[in-house]
Amino acid sequence: MKIAILGSGNVATHLGKALIKAGHPVMQVWSRNHNHAIDLALEIGANSIPEIKNIKAHIDVVIVAVTDDAIAKVASQIPEQENRLILHTSGSTNLEVLSSRFENVGVLYPLQTFSKNSDLDFSLIPLCLEANNDWAMQQLECLAKQLSNQVQRVNSDARAMLHVAAVFACNFTNFFYCIAQQLTDAVQLDFSLLHPLIQETTDKAMLNNPVDVQTGPARRDDKQTMQKHSDLLKNQLQLQALYQSISQYIVKMYHPNGLREINS
Amino acid sequence: MKIAILGSGNVATHLGKALIKAGHPVMQVWSRNHNHAIDLALEIGANSIPEIKNIKAHIDVVIVAVTDDAIAKVASQIPEQENRLILHTSGSTNLEVLSSRFENVGVLYPLQTFSKNSDLDFSLIPLCLEANNDWAMQQLECLAKQLSNQVQRVNSDARAMLHVAAVFACNFTNFFYCIAQQLTDAVQLDFSLLHPLIQETTDKAMLNNPVDVQTGPARRDDKQTMQKHSDLLKNQLQLQALYQSISQYIVKMYHPNGLREINS
Repeated sequence: MKIAILGSGNVATHLGKALIKAGHPVMQVWSRNHNHAIDLALEIGANSIPEIKNIKAHIDVVIVAVTDDAIAKVASQIPEQENRLILHTSGSTNLEVLSSRFENVGVLYPLQTFSKNSDLDFSLIPLCLEANNDWAMQQLECLAKQLSNQVQRVNSDARAMLHVAAVFACNFTNFFYCIAQQLTDAVQLDFSLLHPLIQETTDKAMLNNPVDVQTGPARRDDKQTMQKHSDLLKNQLQLQALYQSISQYIVKMYHPNGLREINS
Repeated sequence: MKIAILGSGNVATHLGKALIKAGHPVMQVWSRNHNHAIDLALEIGANSIPEIKNIKAHIDVVIVAVTDDAIAKVASQIPEQENRLILHTSGSTNLEVLSSRFENVGVLYPLQTFSKNSDLDFSLIPLCLEANNDWAMQQLECLAKQLSNQVQRVNSDARAMLHVAAVFACNFTNFFYCIAQQLTDAVQLDFSLLHPLIQETTDKAMLNNPVDVQTGPARRDDKQTMQKHSDLLKNQLQLQALYQSISQYIVKMYHPNGLREINS
């Protein structure tokens, strides 16, 4: 399949490289910032195009890998073409944004956090697929299975919820790592002291159901320790409120009938 | 050094096994629940004792590995003995709880989350040490370095803050994994779909400063996606409030001057 990629961000870049590696010719790259298109095109041996209407007639698959709010506008400029598959890569965007416009459309959502400088083994990334007809799904599955060993059909509603779950499991946990580092910095300790704990926490949550391996003062409803921790954060009121609030959620989850006061 | 362990929980068990493995004879084990003492003593080839006053005169080190609120009471029953080192293993308990009572005291705080069924390589666990005099520190360091390759002096104040950091990095992140699983369960998707994302998030946070690798809608102040996510959680008001609150913290961290409203 001859492919064009619209976008030059992290998903476009990682996906472009994975497609090339799997032997699919990515022929054309467009980006809102043409210099970025040139860079990515160079990196994967494609041609950069200044305008979306420059997509050639022989392109079989157009992948729209731009920010969620730009998908509709970018897609609207893709030239109509028989037997062409139009895909987006967004977790939280409904397939309808494409299906209202084109005959054969789909979603290829890679469930992973991408950074420019982090090399990922694409074959291990779960790819969540959706399409608006059997032919489109067949094409999409064929493509996806050459990229990853973890390919799964997920409809728009489930994918949207999966995206929220990913925010909790990835973005929100990283935010807590940020706070942990603030706290170790504050007492001149190296954040790396926490690395073995972080790794073990992750390992345990993946080997078990996380709900079965929760530990800590809130899990035990250990009011004395929670109070001590609250007191330690007395000069950082926002952090103190956050500590108390998350602790209360956990206490409530495991001790639904107990008293739940943490005095500040 | 001849050692007695008071306590039979996760820390006592893992520490007891590690001590035996390092060639230190753990001679006596006491626990509030004598059957637990018998079990642990059997497991590590020690003798169980029904009362703390049964600690023999030749015991060089007594490790108090009980819940935080029981440390003072348990320690008060340890027989006085010259050149005996008394240790506790708690992150959030001041050394003073022991130093007010005994001549040579210290803290051996293993910075890790312990579970009964999880086998850990103790040599990789950071051990945070504190003692009330040079002799005690010398004894403690000698012991600790035979257990772990990561040994560090950390005073009571820093250790208390480190314990709060550990709660964020371990307990609170696991709570978010619990929520992520609730959300994937709700749309009949397997939580393991998120495993590669969880592992990559952890890897990135340990290879970098977490604050430099934050991603997601809140990091971008992507109001449209945050609103979509909020809407998806409209039937779970507590979860919706949590989503909005954590998102606002992140938006504020990265966009301190921007508007921060997320309408529910």
